[in-house]
Amino acid sequence: MKTEELSSKIKGEASKAIYEHACDVIIGGVSRNTVYRNPHPYYAAHAKGCHVTDIEGTQRIDFANNMASLIHGHVHPAITEAVIEQIQKGSAYTLATEAEVALGDLLCNRVPGFEKVRFVNSGTEAVMAMIKASRAFTGKPMIAKAEGAYHGTYDFAEVSQVTSPSKWGSIKKPNSVPLVKGTPKEVTDLVAIFPFNDIKRTLNILNEHKDEIACVLIDPVPHRVGLVPASNDYIEAIYKWTRENNALMCFDEVVTLRVNYCGAQERYSVRPDLTALGKMIGGGFPVGALAGRTDVMEVFDPRKQRKRFPHSGTFSANPVSMTAGQIAMKLFDQEAVFKLNALTQRAIKQIEEAIKIADVPISLTGAGSMFRIHLKEKAPATFREAYQDLTERLLIKDLLDYMFFEENIMMINTCACMFSTVMTQKEVDRLSEGMLNAFKFIKLKL
Amino acid sequence: MKTEELSSKIKGEASKAIYEHACDVIIGGVSRNTVYRNPHPYYAAHAKGCHVTDIEGTQRIDFANNMASLIHGHVHPAITEAVIEQIQKGSAYTLATEAEVALGDLLCNRVPGFEKVRFVNSGTEAVMAMIKASRAFTGKPMIAKAEGAYHGTYDFAEVSQVTSPSKWGSIKKPNSVPLVKGTPKEVTDLVAIFPFNDIKRTLNILNEHKDEIACVLIDPVPHRVGLVPASNDYIEAIYKWTRENNALMCFDEVVTLRVNYCGAQERYSVRPDLTALGKMIGGGFPVGALAGRTDVMEVFDPRKQRKRFPHSGTFSANPVSMTAGQIAMKLFDQEAVFKLNALTQRAIKQIEEAIKIADVPISLTGAGSMFRIHLKEKAPATFREAYQDLTERLLIKDLLDYMFFEENIMMINTCACMFSTVMTQKEVDRLSEGMLNAFKFIKLKL
Repeated sequence: MKTEELSSKIKGEASKAIYEHACDVIIGGVSRNTVYRNPHPYYAAHAKGCHVTDIEGTQRIDFANNMASLIHGHVHPAITEAVIEQIQKGSAYTLATEAEVALGDLLCNRVPGFEKVRFVNSGTEAVMAMIKASRAFTGKPMIAKAEGAYHGTYDFAEVSQVTSPSKWGSIKKPNSVPLVKGTPKEVTDLVAIFPFNDIKRTLNILNEHKDEIACVLIDPVPHRVGLVPASNDYIEAIYKWTRENNALMCFDEVVTLRVNYCGAQERYSVRPDLTALGKMIGGGFPVGALAGRTDVMEVFDPRKQRKRFPHSGTFSANPVSMTAGQIAMKLFDQEAVFKLNALTQRAIKQIEEAIKIADVPISLTGAGSMFRIHLKEKAPATFREAYQDLTERLLIKDLLDYMFFEENIMMINTCACMFSTVMTQKEVDRLSEGMLNAFKFIKLKL
Repeated sequence: MKTEELSSKIKGEASKAIYEHACDVIIGGVSRNTVYRNPHPYYAAHAKGCHVTDIEGTQRIDFANNMASLIHGHVHPAITEAVIEQIQKGSAYTLATEAEVALGDLLCNRVPGFEKVRFVNSGTEAVMAMIKASRAFTGKPMIAKAEGAYHGTYDFAEVSQVTSPSKWGSIKKPNSVPLVKGTPKEVTDLVAIFPFNDIKRTLNILNEHKDEIACVLIDPVPHRVGLVPASNDYIEAIYKWTRENNALMCFDEVVTLRVNYCGAQERYSVRPDLTALGKMIGGGFPVGALAGRTDVMEVFDPRKQRKRFPHSGTFSANPVSMTAGQIAMKLFDQEAVFKLNALTQRAIKQIEEAIKIADVPISLTGAGSMFRIHLKEKAPATFREAYQDLTERLLIKDLLDYMFFEENIMMINTCACMFSTVMTQKEVDRLSEGMLNAFKFIKLKL
């Protein structure tokens, strides 16, 4: 079966028509490249629990969950009810609200290293605030980050997010590759790139800039690096290096807070100084947050005579996101985390079974309630191992298309699944069954 | 009457108690410095129309409107109804939605220069995307901005947002003053600072960096510069300079889109290439957008083989903000803009009358539905004229406290008012009456 044949079966006339209109007013027709799909994206009509229905009336099981942000799926009754109540009292004021204190309280009481928190509007804003806070605290200008890691759209944070064999240079000292055309050389020069999970090379690179590095930015299970968890030894080594060199260890847990009750950081023997948060802590509404050590967070303190980091935001800590987030986080208690991770592990087992049955060179990586599929016989351990050439990228696209159109299953466009607490064994069975069919379909093209 | 006496009359025990708890978990107790108030902020209980009630039960007339974002005041019935309907269908999907197309359509059909739009999550994200798009389009690394102008929290955009006589240097070539401690020198060096509305000096400064400047960033009625509109000659001169030097003219209309039906840009003979939007276009929910020339916006196009500016955002164009924004913008039609501006002009006249009666050295600046109070006999025309020394800042604080506590009127902390369409002559009379009392109170301290 060729992709052309597959595409011809696609019903999407309504979405196609809207997209054509969208292209007249929105550049490329979408505001998020993640929802773009060639030749046109699909438009959502409504959703409930783990199902999304598009305007053509096709219902799909949603393993994307708005890029991992909907930990309880769509339109959770408790969240929806509380949000509707809040909206009738106001969506934003030029005053503080009790909702922000309640969510702050909940986060600080949940994760040991979260001594103080501050809310912003997105993960991008959270990472940007974290980097700026690190510079304000240490007085140093550089950051270090992992090759291939995604941390939002602040230009310093997106250096080497996308790179390739012709650009990436030696593994001993990966090049700082700008993502956006026209990124000033001064920006890329202020970002040191290291190979994730490679202790020796990372420390060598950090040592080259030890007087300049304000923070080492780490996503402990970086999605685009390959969704492989950082080893405890690696985190310990970075922690030790940052202690010795007046630098901060900063975690980006915008996605990975879901991994354990206290985030991916729970499994390590040392704690980050600062953590950027977002996605699920807003209960499905726009949110970001920065949490960490009181003495570092003090750079924001508006009560100080000398403000090191004056900071505001029109919708920061708006009571709608705070209310939704509070309920989402309460519902995501120890038991819910345990159940969700167990369900995901069962899904992984069943998919590994499907890989065997289909006899395809495919592997899985992941942690907690998320996994990613690789068209590699052996699960990649590093970014460069996980790197996909054009052939692989096209096959991944075919696999995702098959799941979307033939199996009515939505996944994230990197071929990853992010589970939600409203899923059951039924959805897991549908997923592994769909995957088996998709693997067989892909096998014909290998 | 001394401030101490005034403060002693303040009822705020409930807010004080919450704030004490807030300080345990949120750094400085607030996520937005704008809502901080010494010795503690006040907490909102509920709001409706142009009134906000705090948890102590005090109802105030709201001339702050969440920092100018609530153009129709609080809990507008049509917006609330539509948002509640949307929330029951989902708050965010990994699919596109018709709501984003509808709002995009509305904006592009409203403002002549908005050929294409793209949505983000905040004004900060909109300005950051605008600067990065300018670099991507021109291939040049620098930006130029006005001394004192606020453009959100992207570090390039916040250079010289706060400056002072000891730091600002010669007016012929104002220093690039970092806002946040630890801002890399490389960042401030990439930002040229000019004196707003000063054609000759601005052009001289731009000429010094003509091969490096990607865009000239202009808020056409910059709030923190003094809320004085840019002259047509000034905008024309910048436009001409950008045409001659391969640079873009970028407007920040996050606040000022309210000024006319087509924003503050409506009154000028030339159009910006790009415009950053936010605040009111979200109808009270988190939003940002970038709009402008198709050929420039194409840097974002996800359909292109070579993506110059790959860009996404988990909550960008979420259907809740898009739905609310669409209704807010429809309601803010030509007639609504005209009525709102006329009401604001009546308020300004009445306050100018109060200034005369109280015989105080106070002046007003503004445009459209917004004005700002200055403790200056003559209305300031430039940022350096509008600059407040410590004495003035303390007096402004006293004036704002008087309005808040004695007159139950909320204003923005720069001593500005942003009107909403649900206000009537009744609120204008209360405002001018309250102002008269506040002026008499302040006069005792002059």
